[in-house]
Amino acid sequence: MNNFTFCNPVKIIFGKDTISKLSKELSNDSKVMIIYGGGSIKNNGVYDQVINALTGHKFVEFSGIEPNPHYETCIKCADMIRRENVDFLLAVGGGSVIDATKFIAAAALYDGDAWDIMTGKGKIIKAMPFGTVLTLPATGSEMNSGSVITKASTQEKFAFNSTLVFPKFSVLDPETTFSLPPKQIANGIIDTFVHVMEQYLTYNVNAKLQDYFAESILKVLIEEGSKVFENPYDYDIRANLMWASTWGLNGWIAKGVAEDWSTHMIGHELTALHGIDHGQTLAIVLPGVMGIMKDDKEEKILQLGERVFNITEGSNQDRIIKTIDAVDNFFQSLGIKTRLTDYNVGKETIDSIVKRFEDRNWALGEKGNITPEVVREILIKRM
Amino acid sequence: MNNFTFCNPVKIIFGKDTISKLSKELSNDSKVMIIYGGGSIKNNGVYDQVINALTGHKFVEFSGIEPNPHYETCIKCADMIRRENVDFLLAVGGGSVIDATKFIAAAALYDGDAWDIMTGKGKIIKAMPFGTVLTLPATGSEMNSGSVITKASTQEKFAFNSTLVFPKFSVLDPETTFSLPPKQIANGIIDTFVHVMEQYLTYNVNAKLQDYFAESILKVLIEEGSKVFENPYDYDIRANLMWASTWGLNGWIAKGVAEDWSTHMIGHELTALHGIDHGQTLAIVLPGVMGIMKDDKEEKILQLGERVFNITEGSNQDRIIKTIDAVDNFFQSLGIKTRLTDYNVGKETIDSIVKRFEDRNWALGEKGNITPEVVREILIKRM
Repeated sequence: MNNFTFCNPVKIIFGKDTISKLSKELSNDSKVMIIYGGGSIKNNGVYDQVINALTGHKFVEFSGIEPNPHYETCIKCADMIRRENVDFLLAVGGGSVIDATKFIAAAALYDGDAWDIMTGKGKIIKAMPFGTVLTLPATGSEMNSGSVITKASTQEKFAFNSTLVFPKFSVLDPETTFSLPPKQIANGIIDTFVHVMEQYLTYNVNAKLQDYFAESILKVLIEEGSKVFENPYDYDIRANLMWASTWGLNGWIAKGVAEDWSTHMIGHELTALHGIDHGQTLAIVLPGVMGIMKDDKEEKILQLGERVFNITEGSNQDRIIKTIDAVDNFFQSLGIKTRLTDYNVGKETIDSIVKRFEDRNWALGEKGNITPEVVREILIKRM
Repeated sequence: MNNFTFCNPVKIIFGKDTISKLSKELSNDSKVMIIYGGGSIKNNGVYDQVINALTGHKFVEFSGIEPNPHYETCIKCADMIRRENVDFLLAVGGGSVIDATKFIAAAALYDGDAWDIMTGKGKIIKAMPFGTVLTLPATGSEMNSGSVITKASTQEKFAFNSTLVFPKFSVLDPETTFSLPPKQIANGIIDTFVHVMEQYLTYNVNAKLQDYFAESILKVLIEEGSKVFENPYDYDIRANLMWASTWGLNGWIAKGVAEDWSTHMIGHELTALHGIDHGQTLAIVLPGVMGIMKDDKEEKILQLGERVFNITEGSNQDRIIKTIDAVDNFFQSLGIKTRLTDYNVGKETIDSIVKRFEDRNWALGEKGNITPEVVREILIKRM
């Protein structure tokens, strides 16, 4: 096991009817800004629950955070925060709204061009406090300190991470997910699945607990993912999926092990260039990463096959192929297509992505050997 | 899954040579009190590492915290803290030292008789900040807010819990455990194993992730427990055992599920009355709780047998008996005896314990149906 240092201070308020507990988490004299997306929370009752819970508190609202949230939108929100003397933010939505709120929390107190936070040119030294009400299990953003933001004007999508942007609390009511469309459920399951794989499918460092925990999350996603579409109002299925998605990226399973975030990095480009859903891009890319990097990842792919998919027969090469197919098939079983051609993406896009990675001098993967040319191989394999 | 609210804010600093990082966690103008036990840290090099790490900091020392730490000793330490104007505590040791430090952190700032904190008559409203350097994996105290203290004068052993006594940080260097005597290693593994069982072996609430996580910890204990005695200097085995013991009682696997702490409650009495090691008492009691409560716990015992011990053949009753035997055999494989008669404890002790539970009006277990008379049955089964 590798050395590590970590603290995750997020307070989780989990379960039925927990939005009503919001008031207790807020100071009476705070001025709160509720930040949300396109208005689905007004259709599913979550908005009303939040407003009811905030009775007696001062608040303003900012709506219109888009999927793959835009820097440009966040900057407008930060401007409004300063104008309105807001001192606490409340993100109500999925990972996009929460990621946006993290960036806004930092940008509102940042001197200079806040895009520098995303590129790494600037460093934040303070951020506004905020809480979240999660409505879409997927990103784990409700219990981590990372954020992914897109600059619409340049089609760039970057991530930043700072312990200053851990939520103070996150309210997770599984009932808020009953009304999600099937595609969003599927994308969320895939996002979580791939988060776990990126903290697991590298080389073996004999970190037994982390491996078992990662496999536990994958098993829950597979078991509940096969049932949720037929049983959309089954509370336990929703609760298990929501809790699994939080654990997929709250940081703990990554501690002491190697990581490979290449699938996310490549996927981000497909979203930035073609607007393909984040979960869909991951479903396209991951089987490619597994296939091209199968020698480096052999031991862990075999372990995944055996422990998660019960693949124990045949030569190592057979088992590796079967395991990659099992992952691909799982994504497809959720109704998500897994080939670039399914989304009308051709070779010119692959060239663009390779060029971007060359320009950034990126070498990805747990060993830093997923060079831009290897990225090309991965994407060609997924045509 | 049941509703829950939880936050675990402890910063973990895990790995080789991490004691040297202590200084960074302490403010330069703090006056630190190092709290430790009987001096084993002076033989295994940990004391020297801590003193080196504190170079440049003001500190005093308090030694002599006993196993099953005494209220009377803690009160002496709290008095010294007030005399010496100490403002930060550093526990260096195992669960006893850390539990004592938690009580001391509260007692030093408590107005009135600090034993009231343990009996529940008093409530703490503040506590001194403290960190820990763990040297004996077992109790999980390094990452939780609980503490168990014994009043020597009355042979009473009680637990208290307060979010005010979460450690600010805990340093976990697996190499500090290389020199532990086999009995302490075994007791630590059993303590962790039983912690997990008490958060798992109740009734099923369909909390899939929590169940898988609990089983993950049990599997690590069984796998590494079978190897650690033959390979005492294998770093990974020690690291896996240390990390598993922290997870056994950092709170997360208990969230959303039912709990049954009867084994610990009964075991505490055996320690209080006969001085039997905490781990040994648990090894005696748990198979009795499983046997007497097997109807209430049937579904989970079957699941434990199947997923952890690979027991899948025979009738449910056969599988339950095999699973209880597997647990008992695991404890014995660690060199720990599991019968009251092995420790010369007779029926008069059982009478005393039943009487104590009657006096306290205790009904234990996830359903509150482990009455004093059921406790008698459990203990008679373990003669």
